[in-house]
Amino acid sequence: MKYLVGETTNGTAVFAVDGENAVNLTALNAEIGDDLIGIVQNPQLIESIADRIADAPRVAVSAITPALPIANPGTIICLGLNYTDHIKEGGYDIPDYPALFMRGKNSIMAAGAPLVRPTCSEKLDYEAELMFIVGKGGRHISEADALDHVFGYTVFNDGSVRDYQRKTHQWTPGKNFDDTGAIGPFVVTPDEVPAGASGLKIESRVGDEILQSSNTGNMIWSVAQTIATISQYTTLEPGDLIAMGTPPGVGHAKKPNPRWLVPGETVEIEIEGIGICANPIVDEADHNKGAA
Amino acid sequence: MKYLVGETTNGTAVFAVDGENAVNLTALNAEIGDDLIGIVQNPQLIESIADRIADAPRVAVSAITPALPIANPGTIICLGLNYTDHIKEGGYDIPDYPALFMRGKNSIMAAGAPLVRPTCSEKLDYEAELMFIVGKGGRHISEADALDHVFGYTVFNDGSVRDYQRKTHQWTPGKNFDDTGAIGPFVVTPDEVPAGASGLKIESRVGDEILQSSNTGNMIWSVAQTIATISQYTTLEPGDLIAMGTPPGVGHAKKPNPRWLVPGETVEIEIEGIGICANPIVDEADHNKGAA
Repeated sequence: MKYLVGETTNGTAVFAVDGENAVNLTALNAEIGDDLIGIVQNPQLIESIADRIADAPRVAVSAITPALPIANPGTIICLGLNYTDHIKEGGYDIPDYPALFMRGKNSIMAAGAPLVRPTCSEKLDYEAELMFIVGKGGRHISEADALDHVFGYTVFNDGSVRDYQRKTHQWTPGKNFDDTGAIGPFVVTPDEVPAGASGLKIESRVGDEILQSSNTGNMIWSVAQTIATISQYTTLEPGDLIAMGTPPGVGHAKKPNPRWLVPGETVEIEIEGIGICANPIVDEADHNKGAA
Repeated sequence: MKYLVGETTNGTAVFAVDGENAVNLTALNAEIGDDLIGIVQNPQLIESIADRIADAPRVAVSAITPALPIANPGTIICLGLNYTDHIKEGGYDIPDYPALFMRGKNSIMAAGAPLVRPTCSEKLDYEAELMFIVGKGGRHISEADALDHVFGYTVFNDGSVRDYQRKTHQWTPGKNFDDTGAIGPFVVTPDEVPAGASGLKIESRVGDEILQSSNTGNMIWSVAQTIATISQYTTLEPGDLIAMGTPPGVGHAKKPNPRWLVPGETVEIEIEGIGICANPIVDEADHNKGAA
């Protein structure tokens, strides 16, 4: 299944994507609710309507404005360094444990929404990443069982304000500016991609300019290893979001000059078989003024 | 006002503390709800019952089992290094910006609840800290206006698993083990303490052993400066929790040997005028077995 949470005249709804079209699942069963958390917590909800999807009315995917797949994620955990070449370009040593940080919910927004460059910095950078949504929660999940705990995979742009990321050794501020982390629009279930979503082309672009181009098979820590590692210290909950780190080619490491995102550009992150997350860069001064 | 959220036969309720006794405010007005978020979001709720508190029935504070002041905090942000001597004992340079990290909600629990030493490490450490609850939210809050955004102050034990904190440069794992961060039990409103809760004695103890003893006046970044700094990058929301860092004397820096917490001990954090947060150390293997 390929899901899309999108805006409707009544708020938001969960859609099932079928090629260029989509079926409003929330209209088939209101218990599904406004975003994917309902199905994540209660997979029977999708089974209850499975035999009605084929004959349900279609709308064009292109007519749907995406919303966040999980509107209120409990926890958002991100791997910082998970592709060897990106670690080297940032000047870090290759660690034997993943560098983990957290984002708050005000830092994220849907695919399509403005990605806001703050007034205090011009060093706004993109990071193409695979993200997964935790399905079944748990603690001390073994690597062998871990993939049973993935609800689905989506695309993430781990937008980073580099000078604030490196104000100290802790990256929190630069990874938590309001409206800098874009998620979506599509969530594909594990049966639609290779195990752990490995082996998929991942790319970031502005127009014709290819900024990053790699493959999720180059990740040091797999999705399964990441679940095992994180669940050693914390109980994962249904709907938690985990981002898998970015390949080389980020803006701050471009030679001879850094390549920062500027208002007016649209940055696209694409992962093969999952979709494209595209967001316009908007200056903070123009945000919330209808100027985007 | 001094608040206490505590367990009742019907779940939890908000109490107002009056010396050795307390008044169940939720019983006076059910709209107040199970924890402090109701009053934080709607301060009129407390005004609606202010004239009934004096004559309301009392229960002994000692008979109330504390619960979390905010059961579901949106964001928990912590300062890592905020007392000069603690920075030196950890081997860090004194930074010109606060080291900020985040904790997830599974890492916190109420005063009185077990503080869990994980099976994977014996390096469990205490950190006495002032914590505040955000009242009015906002972005780009000036230092001059910042204290108007504090709902109240409480006590925090920023329990840390040191070897996991230093697995990489990012502290997330060691600061996010389940049930290691103790909060409460009392929340005092700003009128009950000096401005920014500065000038208060802060101490951690196990029995007669004084582990840390300092004063919140020794903090490098004040509460007001911290609010201004954090709100530069993120919108603070009512009920967000912010922890202000710890003074010197943590266990990993004790000479000649580190002083780790061990099961059977009870660690107490006290801040003058706010209260004592006491938690028994329990081994993970004995937790959730009724063995605590």
